Formats: sequence, structure tokens, C-alpha cells
Amino acid sequence: MAQVTVTRRLQFNAAHRVHNPALSDEENRRLFGKCNHPNWHGHNYTLDVSVAGDIDPRTGYVLDLGHLKRIVETHVIDRVDHRNFNLDVDFMQGTIPTSENIVVAFWRVIAPLVAPARLTRLVLWETPNNYVEYEGR
Amino acid sequence: MAQVTVTRRLQFNAAHRVHNPALSDEENRRLFGKCNHPNWHGHNYTLDVSVAGDIDPRTGYVLDLGHLKRIVETHVIDRVDHRNFNLDVDFMQGTIPTSENIVVAFWRVIAPLVAPARLTRLVLWETPNNYVEYEGR
Amino acid sequence: MAQVTVTRRLQFNAAHRVHNPALSDEENRRLFGKCNHPNWHGHNYTLDVSVAGDIDPRTGYVLDLGHLKRIVETHVIDRVDHRNFNLDVDFMQGTIPTSENIVVAFWRVIAPLVAPARLTRLVLWETPNNYVEYEGR
Amino acid sequence: MAQVTVTRRLQFNAAHRVHNPALSDEENRRLFGKCNHPNWHGHNYTLDVSVAGDIDPRTGYVLDLGHLKRIVETHVIDRVDHRNFNLDVDFMQGTIPTSENIVVAFWRVIAPLVAPARLTRLVLWETPNNYVEYEGR
Amino acid sequence: MAQVTVTRRLQFNAAHRVHNPALSDEENRRLFGKCNHPNWHGHNYTLDVSVAGDIDPRTGYVLDLGHLKRIVETHVIDRVDHRNFNLDVDFMQGTIPTSENIVVAFWRVIAPLVAPARLTRLVLWETPNNYVEYEGR
Amino acid sequence: MAQVTVTRRLQFNAAHRVHNPALSDEENRRLFGKCNHPNWHGHNYTLDVSVAGDIDPRTGYVLDLGHLKRIVETHVIDRVDHRNFNLDVDFMQGTIPTSENIVVAFWRVIAPLVAPARLTRLVLWETPNNYVEYEGR
Repeated sequence: MAQVTVTRRLQFNAAHRVHNPALSDEENRRLFGKCNHPNWHGHNYTLDVSVAGDIDPRTGYVLDLGHLKRIVETHVIDRVDHRNFNLDVDFMQGTIPTSENIVVAFWRVIAPLVAPARLTRLVLWETPNNYVEYEGR
Repeated sequence: MAQVTVTRRLQFNAAHRVHNPALSDEENRRLFGKCNHPNWHGHNYTLDVSVAGDIDPRTGYVLDLGHLKRIVETHVIDRVDHRNFNLDVDFMQGTIPTSENIVVAFWRVIAPLVAPARLTRLVLWETPNNYVEYEGR
Repeated sequence: MAQVTVTRRLQFNAAHRVHNPALSDEENRRLFGKCNHPNWHGHNYTLDVSVAGDIDPRTGYVLDLGHLKRIVETHVIDRVDHRNFNLDVDFMQGTIPTSENIVVAFWRVIAPLVAPARLTRLVLWETPNNYVEYEGR
Repeated sequence: MAQVTVTRRLQFNAAHRVHNPALSDEENRRLFGKCNHPNWHGHNYTLDVSVAGDIDPRTGYVLDLGHLKRIVETHVIDRVDHRNFNLDVDFMQGTIPTSENIVVAFWRVIAPLVAPARLTRLVLWETPNNYVEYEGR
Repeated sequence: MAQVTVTRRLQFNAAHRVHNPALSDEENRRLFGKCNHPNWHGHNYTLDVSVAGDIDPRTGYVLDLGHLKRIVETHVIDRVDHRNFNLDVDFMQGTIPTSENIVVAFWRVIAPLVAPARLTRLVLWETPNNYVEYEGR
Repeated sequence: MAQVTVTRRLQFNAAHRVHNPALSDEENRRLFGKCNHPNWHGHNYTLDVSVAGDIDPRTGYVLDLGHLKRIVETHVIDRVDHRNFNLDVDFMQGTIPTSENIVVAFWRVIAPLVAPARLTRLVLWETPNNYVEYEGR
């Protein structure tokens, strides 16, 4: 059976501040520069959700991408879109909201929901010039 | 003499909240929906700055784009990048920070600085799916 | 009052065949080449809808882009998305479904619906390498 | 010897209908929604063809990308561009023309033709928001 | 009759050096910085060619875009692609090869060739962050 | 510990000529066609630099992307931007400046500089339609 990977791209925007509350304000400024600005800043994030599996001969699909879209919208996008990662997102509490930590937190939410396909990769673009990838390892 | 328009694209990101303080919270929510979220949200903005003029026969330029970039960075980008439009940007005070109002405010800052070329158009993308244009009228 | 133009980008996909039923098959093939293929072909279309007007001081908007999106989705996108321009779209009947004719037909549908703003430009991308524009003249 | 992967991007557009002829019309509508529309719809597809191998010290190439382009155009693009996947494409007969099945069928055509390089990945974008990948496993 | 503008996008790449031979080397370095580098540098240029006119009721076209593509390829792209603007392009001789001068020179070549449509705009992207426009005035 | 990959995209432009000095002019023309043009041509290159590692719990970063950007700018971009790959770039001497050879040479420069993260992938786009990838093997 052919193993194919299918990807759905979704967009959201959010505010955040890169800040470690265990460190002093001065140390935060030194480590994070303008990303530590106390009045927040924000991004248009682009999220690529990739799942892999066999092609179902009845549908020709690995997974209905409309179904995948609804799962990710309900469980991730609707909880972060037009929100503040530091203040509003329960599954990010206790974590510095860098793209690295965001993508790992998203993985934990999405991975259990895509069976019988397998979540194989998340790519999160923070700006047109930087992105992070996580493959669950 | 040929009149040519030259454009420099710049990027910044910022937080904002679409909110009219003269209206009730309920009216703000009704008018602006999730864009009124009290804990802010944000965007990667793309700004296209267009100036027109004759081609200088000595340089082949309408205006040195490196010079235009430095003007816009100093007078606009450095005052809004990684900032909060509602709280941090002096030239936006007293204004609802919609893209429409932002682009008009940017015009007032940039237009006097590009002589002998003329500022002819500003385009501001707020997301990959919406943008505003202003031509100074 | 500042006149600002605001644009909402929307996507749809559709099948079509460039064919003039008043001409012979041979003449159609000669004029339209592979675009005349009898079993149809299709495109992911991108539509930019631009409206202009004064900024409403109460909202900071020319027109609520969410409202503009819903108008265009209801009256245009839902009638053409995943459809066949030659067979399924009532407002295209009797017209060769080139991008030129599509954009003029879209104008007639959208222009009456955006008051008090004015529809000022439609841009329709048929492929990443060609697009048409119409300003209602 | 360094193993480098080189990729050529190509575009085509085509019509299709996601439909399983072994199922009832009602079941097809339930499974595939608007993608099952009987009068077809279509897409601008983007195909990324990746091959890997040693760098030839005489040319500095893994494989001449002009050669790769001609192979893919002759054996794939010219057989699907401006065509209908359900009606016109011999190597798709008996298969539901989803992106998953298309990319596997393309692999079978292209893989034997790129020696001594190896075909390592095909990526097929159906819209700007979804794509499939196949690595031959 | 509706006046529609149709645009064809084309790509080419070329080397150049921004240099005014009437000035000293020192003055050239001061004016043009790294763009004056004596061993050349280069760009992937993107050219958007826009023509306007009535829609021909027989074809639904303002101008067959395949025809427009061939005209521009023959008379412009084939004379500049994989060439050096300073050394190889006859219609640029005696001119500093800035984007401003290139776009005006292209206009003079293309404008007489698109009748009965009218050339209305050329846009030339030199990098993803800057472009020039010329409308023949 | 989660292993995340972070990527920074950078741009530069340069001239080159695909030419093997060990071969005759005729053989070079036959092998490389217009890419062998003696007066050079050039490209806007896009480089994606990917590093992987554990997320540092103190910063939430695998590696500060500002730091990665400065490393790559200092050691790669500043040595190739607005330069000629054949004539000006010391670490490319003795090598045909194809994208394949460029990406391997970049790897050798960048890989030692990103510890404790690991360089895992370089992607180099030469045009919007072709790119090469190298993973250090």
C-alpha cells in the first residue's frame, strides 16, 4: 500500500511576548530584545498540518482534508486566533510562547485526533522569514 | 521626461485591538467581533511605499531605494515594529488602529520626507487576504 | 476626508472551456487551442475585490471586510466554486467564460451591493502568470 | 561524495471530479461533497519533482534540470494539462482522481526515467492550502 | 463596451552593474554602493505586461495572452534572459541599467506591438522587495 | 526532550556562469546552454538554513534566530551578495558554481558555527522554479 502524506495549511493571528517570568526584566530584555516588548506584539501565523497513511481505496483519500481542517480549527485555531498566547491559551500556560514551544503544544493537541492516519509533521511560520518544524520526537 | 514609480516593500509586526473608546464594550464587541479581543492580537504587516518622479540621468534612479528604505525604517518601521498600535505609537493616538487609519497616518509621516520625488501610493497588507491602499486624497 | 481603498482576497476553483458556440469546432480549436479542450479544464481562481470610500470615524473602517467577504461569498463565490462556468453559472449564460467576461459579470453582481462604499476594482487571477482587472468602465 | 537533492517545479491545470463509480450517487455526495459536483471543477496544480544523487564533477549537476523538465513535461504534463483527469488521462483510469492517487500515478511514470539520479519525492499542490507528498514507499 | 486590462507575467534572469561611465570610479561607488560591484551581480526579474482594450465578442479576449507572451518573449525576454544588461542588450546601450531605465526601454519595444490593444502598464520586480512601474508618460 | 527544527530564510543576489574550465568552449556550450553565457547572468537566491536541537527551557529557543541570522550573514551572505560566484568567492574557487556546489560549500562554512544546535538542512532556491537541498551526507 502506498504511504502518502497530506497537508492542510491554516492561518491565524495572535499576540505574544517572549518572556521568562523566572528571570529578571533586565535578563529578559538581554535575551529576547524587542520580542520581549511588554505591551506585546503579534504575527500572522501559518500552520501546515501533515498526516500520513494508506490511501483508502473507497475514497482515494488518506484522510478527508475537510475533516482534518475542522479538527484543527476546533481544537487549535479557535483557541489561539485573535488571542494572546501568554494570557489566553490554556494549553500554553507555564511555557514561554516561542514558536518552538507553540508547535510542540499544538502537536500534543492534534496527534491523538487524526487516527487512523498519523500526524507526521507540523510546520509553523511566524514570519515570512522563519519557521519551525516538529515531527513528534 | 519619463515618470516612473518605484516601490520598496518593508515588513513589520505589531499588536493591536480594534476598539473605539467612545463606545460601550458591548457596542465594540458587536462592531468589531474578535478584532476587539481585550488582550490584543497581532499581525505581520507588509508595507509597499511607492514614489514617482523623473529618472535622474546621473543615477538612473527616481530615488535611491536604499535611501527610501532608511527614511521609512527610521520614521515609521522603528516606531511600530514589535509594538502595540493602541499603546505605543504616538502618531496613532486618538485613532482606532484599523489598517485604514494606519495607512493614512503613515502617509502623513512619509509624504514630507521623499522630495523631490512624490509619495504616490501606500499599500498595507494586514493579512495575506486583505490590504488597504491610500493615494493621499 | 481621506479616501481609502480596501481589498478582500477570495479563492475559488471551477471548470471551464473557452468555446464560442457560434463558430465551428475547427475555428474554436484554431482560436483557443488547448483552452478549447471539450472535456473541460479548470483553475484555482483568486479574486481581489476593492472598494473605496471615506473612513467611518465611528469604526475606522471604509467597510467592514467581514461584511464584504460575506456579500461576495453569497452572491459570487457560492455560485461558481466547484462549478462549471459554461454549464452551471446562470449569470454567465450566453457568454464565453474567459477571465475578461467573468470579471465583468462579477462586477455587475457585486457593484450594487457595497454601498455606501464604491466598488473600484476587481482583479481576477486565472493562473499565477495571468490576471485581468476591471474598474467598471 | 555529497548527495544533493534537486527539485524542479512545474505547473499545469486540469478538471476533475472526486467520484467512486462503485458507490451510489448519494454515497458519493455524502463522502465528497462539492468535490463530487457532476459537471466537474478544476485546479491549477503545482508539481515539485525531486531527484537525488551524487554531484557529477564534470558538470556540477546531479541531473540537468532542463533535461528533468523535458522528461516530466513529455511524460506527465503534456498528458494532463488542460485535460480532465477522469475522462482523458490513460494512466489514471480505474482510479479516483484525488491528489493522493494522482501523485502515486505520477511517481510510477517518472521514477523509471531519471536514472542515474533517483526520484526521491513528489509534492503536488492542489490549492494554495493543501498538498500531498509521496516518497515511493 | 467594457474596457478590461489583461496582464501576463514573465520571468527572466540577467546580470548587471549600476555604473555611470561619465563619473569617476569613486563617485560611482559613493552613489551606487554594492550595486556598482565591478564583477557584476544579477537578479531573477519578474515582468508584468498589461494591455487594455475592448473585449472582442468573438473570442471573449482583449488580446490572446498566448500571442502577448510570444511577442514579449521574442522582442524582450530572448534579448535579455541569461544576458548582461551592460554588455549584451543593444536597446540598453548608453543607459545605466537601473530598473527605471530598463522598464522605459522595454516600453518602447513592446508598445508598438500590441495593437489594437494598448500597452497600459509595465511592472518590473528586481527583487521580492522592490519593483518599478511605468505607464508610458 | 523535544527535538525541533528552526529555519531562517535569507536572500542575496549574485552573478555566475556555469562553466567548466577543463572543457572546451564548445563542450561548455553544449552542456550548459544559455547558463554558460560568457558575460554572466545572475539570480536572486533564497537560502533556508535549518538547525535542530533541544528546546532550551530558559529561552524556549533551539537557537536564537537573530544569532543564526548574524552568523549566516557574516560568514556567507556578506561574501556572496552582489558578487560574482566565479570571480569573487574564495570558498567556491576550483568549483563550477552550480546550485549543487554552492549549497555544499555553504554547508562546510555554516555547519561548524551553529553548535550546540546541529545544521540539518540547507535549501537554496535559484529561481522560483528550482531549488536544491543538502543535509550533509
